Amino acid sequence: MSRIGIHSFVWSAGSSQSELERTLANTREAGFDLIEFSYLDPANVDIDGLAKRIADLGLGVAISIGLPADGDISSDDSAVAARGVGILNETIALTRDLGGQKVAGILSTSHGLQKQAPTRDQWKRSAGTLAEVAETAKAAGVTLNLEIVNRFESNLLNTAAQGMAFIEDTGSDNIFLHLDTFHMNIEEADAALAIRNAASKIGYVHIGESHRGFLGTGSIDFAAIFDALTAIGYGDDLSFESFSSEIVDEKLSKTTAIWRNLWADNMELAKHARRFIGLGLETARLKAELVSASQRPDS
Amino acid sequence: MSRIGIHSFVWSAGSSQSELERTLANTREAGFDLIEFSYLDPANVDIDGLAKRIADLGLGVAISIGLPADGDISSDDSAVAARGVGILNETIALTRDLGGQKVAGILSTSHGLQKQAPTRDQWKRSAGTLAEVAETAKAAGVTLNLEIVNRFESNLLNTAAQGMAFIEDTGSDNIFLHLDTFHMNIEEADAALAIRNAASKIGYVHIGESHRGFLGTGSIDFAAIFDALTAIGYGDDLSFESFSSEIVDEKLSKTTAIWRNLWADNMELAKHARRFIGLGLETARLKAELVSASQRPDS
Amino acid sequence: MSRIGIHSFVWSAGSSQSELERTLANTREAGFDLIEFSYLDPANVDIDGLAKRIADLGLGVAISIGLPADGDISSDDSAVAARGVGILNETIALTRDLGGQKVAGILSTSHGLQKQAPTRDQWKRSAGTLAEVAETAKAAGVTLNLEIVNRFESNLLNTAAQGMAFIEDTGSDNIFLHLDTFHMNIEEADAALAIRNAASKIGYVHIGESHRGFLGTGSIDFAAIFDALTAIGYGDDLSFESFSSEIVDEKLSKTTAIWRNLWADNMELAKHARRFIGLGLETARLKAELVSASQRPDS
Amino acid sequence: MSRIGIHSFVWSAGSSQSELERTLANTREAGFDLIEFSYLDPANVDIDGLAKRIADLGLGVAISIGLPADGDISSDDSAVAARGVGILNETIALTRDLGGQKVAGILSTSHGLQKQAPTRDQWKRSAGTLAEVAETAKAAGVTLNLEIVNRFESNLLNTAAQGMAFIEDTGSDNIFLHLDTFHMNIEEADAALAIRNAASKIGYVHIGESHRGFLGTGSIDFAAIFDALTAIGYGDDLSFESFSSEIVDEKLSKTTAIWRNLWADNMELAKHARRFIGLGLETARLKAELVSASQRPDS
Repeated sequence: MSRIGIHSFVWSAGSSQSELERTLANTREAGFDLIEFSYLDPANVDIDGLAKRIADLGLGVAISIGLPADGDISSDDSAVAARGVGILNETIALTRDLGGQKVAGILSTSHGLQKQAPTRDQWKRSAGTLAEVAETAKAAGVTLNLEIVNRFESNLLNTAAQGMAFIEDTGSDNIFLHLDTFHMNIEEADAALAIRNAASKIGYVHIGESHRGFLGTGSIDFAAIFDALTAIGYGDDLSFESFSSEIVDEKLSKTTAIWRNLWADNMELAKHARRFIGLGLETARLKAELVSASQRPDS
Repeated sequence: MSRIGIHSFVWSAGSSQSELERTLANTREAGFDLIEFSYLDPANVDIDGLAKRIADLGLGVAISIGLPADGDISSDDSAVAARGVGILNETIALTRDLGGQKVAGILSTSHGLQKQAPTRDQWKRSAGTLAEVAETAKAAGVTLNLEIVNRFESNLLNTAAQGMAFIEDTGSDNIFLHLDTFHMNIEEADAALAIRNAASKIGYVHIGESHRGFLGTGSIDFAAIFDALTAIGYGDDLSFESFSSEIVDEKLSKTTAIWRNLWADNMELAKHARRFIGLGLETARLKAELVSASQRPDS
Repeated sequence: MSRIGIHSFVWSAGSSQSELERTLANTREAGFDLIEFSYLDPANVDIDGLAKRIADLGLGVAISIGLPADGDISSDDSAVAARGVGILNETIALTRDLGGQKVAGILSTSHGLQKQAPTRDQWKRSAGTLAEVAETAKAAGVTLNLEIVNRFESNLLNTAAQGMAFIEDTGSDNIFLHLDTFHMNIEEADAALAIRNAASKIGYVHIGESHRGFLGTGSIDFAAIFDALTAIGYGDDLSFESFSSEIVDEKLSKTTAIWRNLWADNMELAKHARRFIGLGLETARLKAELVSASQRPDS
Repeated sequence: MSRIGIHSFVWSAGSSQSELERTLANTREAGFDLIEFSYLDPANVDIDGLAKRIADLGLGVAISIGLPADGDISSDDSAVAARGVGILNETIALTRDLGGQKVAGILSTSHGLQKQAPTRDQWKRSAGTLAEVAETAKAAGVTLNLEIVNRFESNLLNTAAQGMAFIEDTGSDNIFLHLDTFHMNIEEADAALAIRNAASKIGYVHIGESHRGFLGTGSIDFAAIFDALTAIGYGDDLSFESFSSEIVDEKLSKTTAIWRNLWADNMELAKHARRFIGLGLETARLKAELVSASQRPDS
């Protein structure tokens, strides 16, 4: 059974002690099993205290990031690439220290609208570097999960099939895919088929609507998503992600172009999402059982 | 590549020489590769002449039937069951004589609204009898394809999963499934998933809309159907079936409750169906290629 | 806000005192607002006691029937038609006595697979008779709601558009449509569009899956249904209907061809349905608000 | 009946005489009625000759642009805004000179990822300026059609509802919406409902897939789009737009983040699109007729 998580920016973009506390409490109140933090700065956060609080609440934790432009590991500027490696290593350590097992997000390039088409050398540099970082992660008991994002947020890995090829090229067994329905809606020919094709390498999944608001109020056929996850027997973590202009993070809001108010009441949003995902997964399971029931007459 | 067929009742319910001739000519004109006949009576038709005409036109041929109430092989009345076997054997011979390789339709019970729930004994009688008939068919170079139909047309095999269990119980390697999107729309939890689950045993497919009229003007998600057929590599025959009160067959129209006029111009209907199926299969192929394209940067 | 009802055959096909009591208690426990009874026989039921119990529980009530073959008001046999009028009048009285305001179901013909195509005279007889019965109903504070059913269950009114024409021909202002998603999935070109086109005359709605089992485990696009009901501002009663071979009613199970076990635990089914409908309507409302939000910048 | 157009970048991003000639010939060969040009520079093109050639071929023409960052009419820098007005006026003149009646595209802001959330003042400046430009356009027999684009390409008008509010605020009767299915897939809660809600102001429509490649190979439910356009009686121009890394325009390819090769053979793509749109519109019409057919029995 998947743990159902939620992205912390539903609750707050801040990381003060009280904001983190409220984030964890809200996560539990809304019925989620896991909290995903982005851009937590160890320098400003009592990591040990946070780890203890997460454990006490029985929550899981994952960390997602997007590399900055000046820390792009695919860059041909070795200083920039090295900075990216540093960020990845810190994130691995942070994840381990918080008691998590997954680093997710945009790791293969920087996060944001790129100015050039991707190149073969860029791909190779990124794959080679990640292969090494993945060893560091493995030693820390952490996996790398490459988020496959839309074209406006990275130029390198926009589809699950590209991600599979990229993982193959790294040669690593500690790199997986982080799929996200918001991005898949833009880039995949068929999100459900992409999930089936990538079954062996999916390590983390974001459940987000096409406009990043309330689940079910957009373009995405979530029943098809839940059916595909059920068909491949996916039982790993599944996190809800949603952004609104209500909660602004300087790093993320502009890169992801959050201009509209998709919701104001985050608790209403989160509880709705939890029910939506729960009922969706339950219904997908019932459907899969029914479609394969032999139903020979009993008597 | 699938041959695309059409059910003869789109053209005519009659079997006079001129009607048969027009049916074949129309089939070709509308761009189909195969004609499916139902209830052709060898006593009234010049079978050799028809076979020659079919071959001359380069068409394929399939025969579908539904067993009558007094020829139900699942009956506990041995005379009724024996009559059913006779009908099946005649149909096998007719199919072979016309140059066809498939007998399709409702073979496991009679065709029509049954009055009792199915029983285990009924299932066993039907499976045992069909196992024997399948040997006769094999000797004639013909396969049996069991149409999985909705609850109002038979009580025994309403889903592909039931059909798979039934084929298993026959022990025969010459019995396959004849799936039909019209029936699947009513009975299957998920038509596309049912197709995937039954991949190894699908011998024939009917493409029909939820109300049996123009493709695309009803409830059925044909893109999902074409995607599933593409995913399993289905390359066998695929026939369009449509009924309207415009063309009445005493045997079939009432059993299938054709009360409404879904179309008047059968050539418009058939050409539309041919374009719809052709474009649908082509688009499904393009989608399947795209979703699995690695797209490493070229340079 | 629609009251959310449930068909009593989810709970029991019987009408003993204890069965009725359990039916009402289950209805409440599963979170429904209204109970729909079919074929309650006043001769065998303490109607006043039942009415009091329904009222005490704060439940709404509706009555649905299907006319029998020997009580078909569209028949050209005047004795048969008269028997049908008698049944309708008794049902109206029963509905009023139970505290209900709606008679629903298959009222324009008998319920079951008909043997002949519909005729203009049949249509006229049925419309003329229902116009009169509707006056009786009006005097009792009850509306007639004509269920639009699939071709295998009646030959006269298979689509909402036919129902609208039929109501027009009755000239009555006390006759409405009873739409049912199970039937619409088979007969309507587009269920959502049919709902929009029939907006002014929808009096009752059945929410049922394509195979009559768990909602969301079949072919029906319920989001489109809920969106259409939201778009037309439908706020009247909405009832969940589901049949399984688990609960057999001699009258209904064979007419509706219930051969398969779609569920065994009716409380699990009912609670799932209640959540599914509740979340579906809530999500449709959120979607409708979002799609029309002007979202001029605030500042 | 809508004219079916195609965006010139399917054929070429260049504007040499031979490229333009081939673009027009290809447009005709693939069966389109209208060509949409972007960023034609009158200084480098023989506009009169092009206009004559378009007319000779019996083609319609439309012009789309996206304002540059240094010509953003919503800017608080009056020089930047004035440059934008100049570009719009030149585009209006060019459209008129080519024999067209529509200027389309991203006119209310610059085209590209913005760095700030939209402001009320920005909205007002843009609306006020466009109201004036619309008068110039009117005098030239040309309408302004504001493309509603995704968040990564503009911050101001991302949904049809925003566009309707914006048009209202301009007070102009010569400003309409240019809707685009690619963008709607990301931003609209429901593309079909958005089309219905904006029915009175839709002046131009782009038909593009979710990943900008072959129609039908992505996330978009085009049947719902064609149904909605049919429901509102849309009969104005409808153009196919697709981009691939195969054809690169410096201005457009990076702003729209075209990194992947979605197709190599543009004639295959265009002919497929023409068939897809043609069959889709025809099927939507048949569906709309069927769903509202009264079908009283004939006799």
